[in-house]
Amino acid sequence: MDKITVGILGATSYTGVELVKILARHPQATIAFACSRSSPGVAFSRIFGEAKNLWDGALISFEEAAKQQVDCIFSCLPHAVSAEYCTPFIAKNIRTIDLSADFRIREAENYTQWYQHDHPSPQLLKEAVFGLPEHYRDAIKKATVLANPGCYPTSILLPLLPLYKTAGVSVRSVIADSKSGVSGAGRALKLTSLYAEANENIFPYSIGRTHRHIAEIEQELSLAAGKAVQIIFSPHLAPFNRGILSTIYIDVNKTAEECSSIILNYYRNEPFIRIRTKSDLPKVSFVAHTNYCDIAFTESGKAGLVIAVCAIDNLIKGASGQAVQNMNIMFGFNETAGLI
Amino acid sequence: MDKITVGILGATSYTGVELVKILARHPQATIAFACSRSSPGVAFSRIFGEAKNLWDGALISFEEAAKQQVDCIFSCLPHAVSAEYCTPFIAKNIRTIDLSADFRIREAENYTQWYQHDHPSPQLLKEAVFGLPEHYRDAIKKATVLANPGCYPTSILLPLLPLYKTAGVSVRSVIADSKSGVSGAGRALKLTSLYAEANENIFPYSIGRTHRHIAEIEQELSLAAGKAVQIIFSPHLAPFNRGILSTIYIDVNKTAEECSSIILNYYRNEPFIRIRTKSDLPKVSFVAHTNYCDIAFTESGKAGLVIAVCAIDNLIKGASGQAVQNMNIMFGFNETAGLI
Amino acid sequence: MDKITVGILGATSYTGVELVKILARHPQATIAFACSRSSPGVAFSRIFGEAKNLWDGALISFEEAAKQQVDCIFSCLPHAVSAEYCTPFIAKNIRTIDLSADFRIREAENYTQWYQHDHPSPQLLKEAVFGLPEHYRDAIKKATVLANPGCYPTSILLPLLPLYKTAGVSVRSVIADSKSGVSGAGRALKLTSLYAEANENIFPYSIGRTHRHIAEIEQELSLAAGKAVQIIFSPHLAPFNRGILSTIYIDVNKTAEECSSIILNYYRNEPFIRIRTKSDLPKVSFVAHTNYCDIAFTESGKAGLVIAVCAIDNLIKGASGQAVQNMNIMFGFNETAGLI
Amino acid sequence: MDKITVGILGATSYTGVELVKILARHPQATIAFACSRSSPGVAFSRIFGEAKNLWDGALISFEEAAKQQVDCIFSCLPHAVSAEYCTPFIAKNIRTIDLSADFRIREAENYTQWYQHDHPSPQLLKEAVFGLPEHYRDAIKKATVLANPGCYPTSILLPLLPLYKTAGVSVRSVIADSKSGVSGAGRALKLTSLYAEANENIFPYSIGRTHRHIAEIEQELSLAAGKAVQIIFSPHLAPFNRGILSTIYIDVNKTAEECSSIILNYYRNEPFIRIRTKSDLPKVSFVAHTNYCDIAFTESGKAGLVIAVCAIDNLIKGASGQAVQNMNIMFGFNETAGLI
Repeated sequence: MDKITVGILGATSYTGVELVKILARHPQATIAFACSRSSPGVAFSRIFGEAKNLWDGALISFEEAAKQQVDCIFSCLPHAVSAEYCTPFIAKNIRTIDLSADFRIREAENYTQWYQHDHPSPQLLKEAVFGLPEHYRDAIKKATVLANPGCYPTSILLPLLPLYKTAGVSVRSVIADSKSGVSGAGRALKLTSLYAEANENIFPYSIGRTHRHIAEIEQELSLAAGKAVQIIFSPHLAPFNRGILSTIYIDVNKTAEECSSIILNYYRNEPFIRIRTKSDLPKVSFVAHTNYCDIAFTESGKAGLVIAVCAIDNLIKGASGQAVQNMNIMFGFNETAGLI
Repeated sequence: MDKITVGILGATSYTGVELVKILARHPQATIAFACSRSSPGVAFSRIFGEAKNLWDGALISFEEAAKQQVDCIFSCLPHAVSAEYCTPFIAKNIRTIDLSADFRIREAENYTQWYQHDHPSPQLLKEAVFGLPEHYRDAIKKATVLANPGCYPTSILLPLLPLYKTAGVSVRSVIADSKSGVSGAGRALKLTSLYAEANENIFPYSIGRTHRHIAEIEQELSLAAGKAVQIIFSPHLAPFNRGILSTIYIDVNKTAEECSSIILNYYRNEPFIRIRTKSDLPKVSFVAHTNYCDIAFTESGKAGLVIAVCAIDNLIKGASGQAVQNMNIMFGFNETAGLI
Repeated sequence: MDKITVGILGATSYTGVELVKILARHPQATIAFACSRSSPGVAFSRIFGEAKNLWDGALISFEEAAKQQVDCIFSCLPHAVSAEYCTPFIAKNIRTIDLSADFRIREAENYTQWYQHDHPSPQLLKEAVFGLPEHYRDAIKKATVLANPGCYPTSILLPLLPLYKTAGVSVRSVIADSKSGVSGAGRALKLTSLYAEANENIFPYSIGRTHRHIAEIEQELSLAAGKAVQIIFSPHLAPFNRGILSTIYIDVNKTAEECSSIILNYYRNEPFIRIRTKSDLPKVSFVAHTNYCDIAFTESGKAGLVIAVCAIDNLIKGASGQAVQNMNIMFGFNETAGLI
Repeated sequence: MDKITVGILGATSYTGVELVKILARHPQATIAFACSRSSPGVAFSRIFGEAKNLWDGALISFEEAAKQQVDCIFSCLPHAVSAEYCTPFIAKNIRTIDLSADFRIREAENYTQWYQHDHPSPQLLKEAVFGLPEHYRDAIKKATVLANPGCYPTSILLPLLPLYKTAGVSVRSVIADSKSGVSGAGRALKLTSLYAEANENIFPYSIGRTHRHIAEIEQELSLAAGKAVQIIFSPHLAPFNRGILSTIYIDVNKTAEECSSIILNYYRNEPFIRIRTKSDLPKVSFVAHTNYCDIAFTESGKAGLVIAVCAIDNLIKGASGQAVQNMNIMFGFNETAGLI
């Protein structure tokens, strides 16, 4: 099969370099260009030394990128900017995988409320597909605008959606206590991302239903439930490079064992979901540097409350790996190509 | 004022070396001896290089220790062993501060159930004082047997007890999601404590009402509530040396603001409790290497559910610092001596 | 091409799990068995949760392993034990790749001197090939007994050997100051490998020509030089999981620029050697999780003294990746198969 | 004795907060003000949460600071800025302790060469005292302008100066391979200081006689030697918060044992120097959070070459602790006040 050509917008981010590393080894894709607003003209591997020999192309400007014809565009740009830069490619009917939040929210007003500015291309929101392969595979196959899910949402939706979608299961409330590695904060220069601030430390931030990822988590849970769902979500910054562990307290009319059966059955053919047991709970180290999502259910010790534990690599299953998984589905490749 | 003499049992532990470092600088205490089952005869500062010049005494055997006359004994031995080694000193009426769990549980059957063996001195359980200074200061003044609280319990009880003790407050349920640094696992050689296992990782363990610290947490909450209280407690091992952050989800008939007022008032004269605000939440880095306990209450975004965040240094306020705070109270010293 | 079958001895080590992860994805090899002295009968992925779905086979005992017929044996056992366990396979003419030090030392007396016991199969020492592909590729193709080099030696020999082998270059003295991640100390339970001991710390150990890796470093340099070479080697334990950085001070009759040219030319066709420049020096993060060896030469500021900086992943190019590179050469596969 | 009043310029730096933490507990000093160019008016403990209750004063502007009358000024400002801001206080004869490099270089041309701009107050360079207490205690007592040494220089000069100053010792060459924690890079927002860049990494920077600290190291060694001394100095950034370990290769006409004797004798009355042995080498963890400097000499295994290992906390003995030690000397306090 011929290889497809791909272009990457916003390549000088942590999701960007991860994407380059996966795509440079992908058997069916070729990186046509990588684009950077800050460093056009510079060799990518001068900015990310680990890419030397893997992909040494020079970064190009957005203006140059806009002239390129490729099969697929990935955007690692920040929200708001991303929709604006993706739109010209979408207009040319180039299949576009956006790793920002810009196409994840189905209702423009909802987007405006959480992201504090109007969406630049609200008409595209209806058309965009939420790229969680385990739940939207058929729609992903045909998608032109693919909204790659957020890292926290991936770690919370994958354990919860099967419960919401299974007849006879009634989820009464959810508290998700999530711990993320520091790469989740991106490569921007901010004080809390400094080594001496994050190291030997752990702390919550944006707790109390204020983190923007709540928008997509509740949107997807509500769709699955057929009614409005609200959750409590507490993100924490933890001192490791990559990974998210979400410990999720679920008030539900099933036991942990029943939840395990449901999810084991639901995901029985999924190549990237590993269901673990209560004596073998997920750890970030099990999934780091992989596209796996590890899930286990265990008893809380209180009737009617079970605990789900979910671990992913925030840069892979939580971002660039999942984006390539989506690309594989969109272009009819083996879904695990380049990912195992 | 004359200095008191103190002896330390089980000094070659992380709580032991922390105790030596605090006591060596304490204006009113002198270390008479430090005892080790594994290394009698070895200079303490050969085992812990950081103690060089601070305290260079040779470790002695338990047999030698038993002959010493001191004013106060600290035990950093593991549970079961600790009660056995402390008993002869208690019999000589030497005031004894036990950092193990052996004297924390008031009912012998409860101890047996959680610790899987009979208590060696059950008659002492009634006499022992639970050494949480902010709640038992008067009893501590007179205690002969002082049970220093566990690290997780300190981080959970300090934010919760004022709520349980305040008239008109009704706590309906509690979920404590705690993240501990690796020193909490002690200096014993176990696989999960290896650097390459704990680093770049985070994971839950003993979740689902199975961790032994539940015994003392529920005992103290039940006493405060005047009825049986059960909580859900999920400890996690996180990659830093020292510190515990507990994120506590409380189903309660008060707002976060009201909880803040209650706790601010309750602890208004406490030298080691710092109440923070929702825009200035606790972080482990704020309390590391100190005896402070930082607490804040914040809204969860769901009516009837508030979040408390509490941070301590597990080796100081969660162990050796609190032990010295108790010693200060027992001997009538300034409560902050050697600790600020 | 048919796949070869491989067996792994001592699989429950850090090099063992790394080997399983590489071989499970290798296009031309199948893991026939993995053997463990400590955990026969246990599923490998129960011990290393990250291996779930990659390789879930049960570990077998050495007795069972000895009956198996495979094309290639890898040993991740500790030295002394390794030679003993490998010998029966070698006797059956099975090509054997030993990751321990047991076959690296060409002279039995030299082995005895450094490893403090007699070699169990001294006759095999002459036959064994030192598996540094960039320097012994032809011999590796035909090897039955392959001695995979140590991690520190790989990081020191790769930058130095081309200098020693180039006519007109005279190296007068070498000081290698190396910094290794903690996985280099293995998965054995020892105090200095505990998280709370290694974290927030760095320290030298076995300095002053006492570390055993000196034996193979000096052996190979002496062979290249055609005369006895002695170096100064100072290993340090540094707080990261994987990687070695060696900063090497070389008293030599060439400039850094000349050394760069020599090495660039020497390794111009090597797939795993990346020569960097003085403005783009090696970092451990550039090579972590890869089989690359990054090298740069830079001026010291003193005439006649140049500095080489070399970085590898101690578990990959320093152990299991290099072992698979050797397997690829031995069996005529593409040298990078399974490794990029 | 009455307390002295002190003011701090540039308090919102890592050395600034360390200074506040030491001075807030100092028995003979009171913080009169802390000044910040970026955050005047903000409570110090809102910026550094760990300072809550220790020192909650509001930061003031430089304009306000200039009007204050205090006994002692500390400057934690960056070089070039620092001299400019200190000069008005010096003009008022206020004893000034500058933690920047601005007064460390005795010759204005030398300063200009290394710092790439002219010194704003060259006349003060002659008057300034280099604040290494173990070598300039008498001059420090009378100093008005005190140049607090750099962190790397402290870790290199303290082991070397006694050799250069002892009759009969001839040091032929020195290579210092230093490993610093990330706080040494300061609190400025730069890419290499980001957690995800520095964590799981180690790398050299400014090697080859290009790091600015060479200026003060060679100045002091040359003064001690009575002739021009040049060294090779290779700093590395290592993944821990605080501490420097310098491994120093010394070509000298003495054995390691003789060097140990010399230094043991030289520093026999020094409260903050701890001489260790070759079987008990310095580690960063031994000195972290203290004002100690730990030094050991050991054999290299090559005749005529000994290795010195030196560890300090870069923020304490390498900056703020040494600054307070200098203050103690300048004002006739016990030299260890506030520091042990």
